[in-house]
Amino acid sequence: MATPIAGFRFSAVSAGIRKDGRVDVALAVAERPVVAAGRVTRNLVKAAPILVAEDRLRAGSLRGVLVNAGCANACTGEAGLEAARRSTAAVASALGAAPGEIVPASTGVIGALLPADRIVDRAGELVGLLSPTGIDDFARAICTTDRWPKVAEAPLEGPSGRASLLGIAKGAGMIHPDLGPPQATMLAFLFTDAIVERTMLDSLLGAVTERTFNACTVDGDTSTNDFVLLLASGASGVRVPPASLVVGLDAVCGSLARSMVRDGEGANHAVDIVVRGLASAGEANQLAQTVATSLLVKTALFGQDANWGRLLAAAGRAGVYFDPNAASVAIAGVEVARAGVAVGAEAEAEAQRRMSAETFTVELRLGSGPGHATVVTSDLGHGYVDVNATYRS
Amino acid sequence: MATPIAGFRFSAVSAGIRKDGRVDVALAVAERPVVAAGRVTRNLVKAAPILVAEDRLRAGSLRGVLVNAGCANACTGEAGLEAARRSTAAVASALGAAPGEIVPASTGVIGALLPADRIVDRAGELVGLLSPTGIDDFARAICTTDRWPKVAEAPLEGPSGRASLLGIAKGAGMIHPDLGPPQATMLAFLFTDAIVERTMLDSLLGAVTERTFNACTVDGDTSTNDFVLLLASGASGVRVPPASLVVGLDAVCGSLARSMVRDGEGANHAVDIVVRGLASAGEANQLAQTVATSLLVKTALFGQDANWGRLLAAAGRAGVYFDPNAASVAIAGVEVARAGVAVGAEAEAEAQRRMSAETFTVELRLGSGPGHATVVTSDLGHGYVDVNATYRS
Repeated sequence: MATPIAGFRFSAVSAGIRKDGRVDVALAVAERPVVAAGRVTRNLVKAAPILVAEDRLRAGSLRGVLVNAGCANACTGEAGLEAARRSTAAVASALGAAPGEIVPASTGVIGALLPADRIVDRAGELVGLLSPTGIDDFARAICTTDRWPKVAEAPLEGPSGRASLLGIAKGAGMIHPDLGPPQATMLAFLFTDAIVERTMLDSLLGAVTERTFNACTVDGDTSTNDFVLLLASGASGVRVPPASLVVGLDAVCGSLARSMVRDGEGANHAVDIVVRGLASAGEANQLAQTVATSLLVKTALFGQDANWGRLLAAAGRAGVYFDPNAASVAIAGVEVARAGVAVGAEAEAEAQRRMSAETFTVELRLGSGPGHATVVTSDLGHGYVDVNATYRS
Repeated sequence: MATPIAGFRFSAVSAGIRKDGRVDVALAVAERPVVAAGRVTRNLVKAAPILVAEDRLRAGSLRGVLVNAGCANACTGEAGLEAARRSTAAVASALGAAPGEIVPASTGVIGALLPADRIVDRAGELVGLLSPTGIDDFARAICTTDRWPKVAEAPLEGPSGRASLLGIAKGAGMIHPDLGPPQATMLAFLFTDAIVERTMLDSLLGAVTERTFNACTVDGDTSTNDFVLLLASGASGVRVPPASLVVGLDAVCGSLARSMVRDGEGANHAVDIVVRGLASAGEANQLAQTVATSLLVKTALFGQDANWGRLLAAAGRAGVYFDPNAASVAIAGVEVARAGVAVGAEAEAEAQRRMSAETFTVELRLGSGPGHATVVTSDLGHGYVDVNATYRS
């Protein structure tokens, strides 16, 4: 069970938005307006809740977030915006907060309008159930195709004492976040009781998002609804230095991102694709993303086949220069290709054995340049097809 | 059965390169050196046969092509080049041709060295079996995961009579050709008995390749071995105008590209992704490619789910500007989204029924600009995972 975090309360109800009747609406609120920073999807097609949240984040101060699963409320036009506003207004009113102080977040089928009435009807109950110990209820309510809820915690060390950071996320498919200044359907909600100023909160969230959420992929499909929100209540009374907050955010966001990939629809492995030796970090990231999203690479990972030729073939189409004759590939710590050619059958057999691990690393050394990058990816097998061929039925 | 084409003979043998003992080496030759044009993969990692063929294509004149399945001879260094040269030299010698007049082409596992000796040993037999009616043997020998051989024919009208165009291709996976001036693992071999000059042959092949082979995808993975070769024997004695050759090449290459997609590993459908209304053809192509390679789109096609939200979500991450509120989507001729929002459940149900067809069109109208493009894609289901998780075992 997650540890309560000073200044925040959580609740969840079933409002009948999911077809299966599971708990599907969740609320997280601070005792009073608190410092807020967020990142929303860079997809050109942004869901209604994203557009509303973007607008409300500009104030830099919020009371909380209202989240539903089962309906993305994306591609729903004016009616979608209205539904997002009406549902958050009902919750704000029950809380005694201003309407703009609650941001909406949604995940589920694209193209279906959020049935706002069902949330409005349960607004009083949602607020009544708020509790410091409601974290696990919140985490379960926001899941869609997830096999497990995703919660991560980290201590934040300050000169006058210790504060806390809590992260709650969902996501298993349509995972290839590309989160920019105020941009899921990964959703991640981060709560800290540290005292942090808004500009620092915002810039640190941006930097950490790039190397955690934006460096993980399940299927290469960036959602219309991706959203990361960080609220800082200050209720611990502890002011933490930036370095401490970065360490905590890296730990919590990294853990949540890895948990999403490990929970990738139908996936059995979370694999770190590490690229080294290119001219720049940008080129290394572009190449790592190409390898991490290659269907032939992902199906080989599913089959536990040390097929390094597919890794190099994907690298070769990334649009980044390297010398294929200088390339080496190591899978789970075993070098299987050196100077562009095979090391041998024994090495491949050993790598293959190690590929049964839940997590391992694939390393491509492509030259002697300083550019390196890591992207976390999942294997892709029958489970992914099952989930996504029948998602709406 | 394919019709013989004046000036060309074909043969195939089993040389034990494939593990299953199937016919795996094929030869196509002209009676004498003929005009040649080719396109090879733009993948930075180019297989040995591609490097050798690129070099030999510079002469503009060739006797023929030696093709093997079961081994890509890619990522095999100097030994791979030597194997490609030695096997083609043996065939050239048996034919009485110069060593550089036969180009190699390979398809199969990346990273394994071509066992050239097995081809050298069968060179005499391959040449002895050459026959104008060997086309179907050739087409079967070059298949790997293909469910059927791929042959297409077209007449070429000239002022003095009619010539012929024959195309033979293979390919079902690692299909996302990106063929450039001298660049599968799609392989396509085109033969005509028309009289055509080299520069015209080359420029027409380039233009037609862009809108056929380079506009089709199964899995987004561009191979190290993609190769298109066009030989013109002139043996019909008929000179054809460029317009006639373009019509023939479009028909044959378009048919072969569509057959590869329809035969996409585990696929049941070949779907035209048509994008209209963007600022330029380049932007339309970039967006069509993004939609055509989206896993969520391809699994929805497999599931026969008219999930237009996934289509717009993929469009939104293509890096191309359009107004989501002006976007309309039609699936198999049924408009399911208009002005960015759902048309209704009835329209989706009708679209869904029509999605059982072997081929249909998905059309995205994204504005009023002149830019349009079409990319042919397959659905992605369990068969793809089966083929690719166990490809090397």
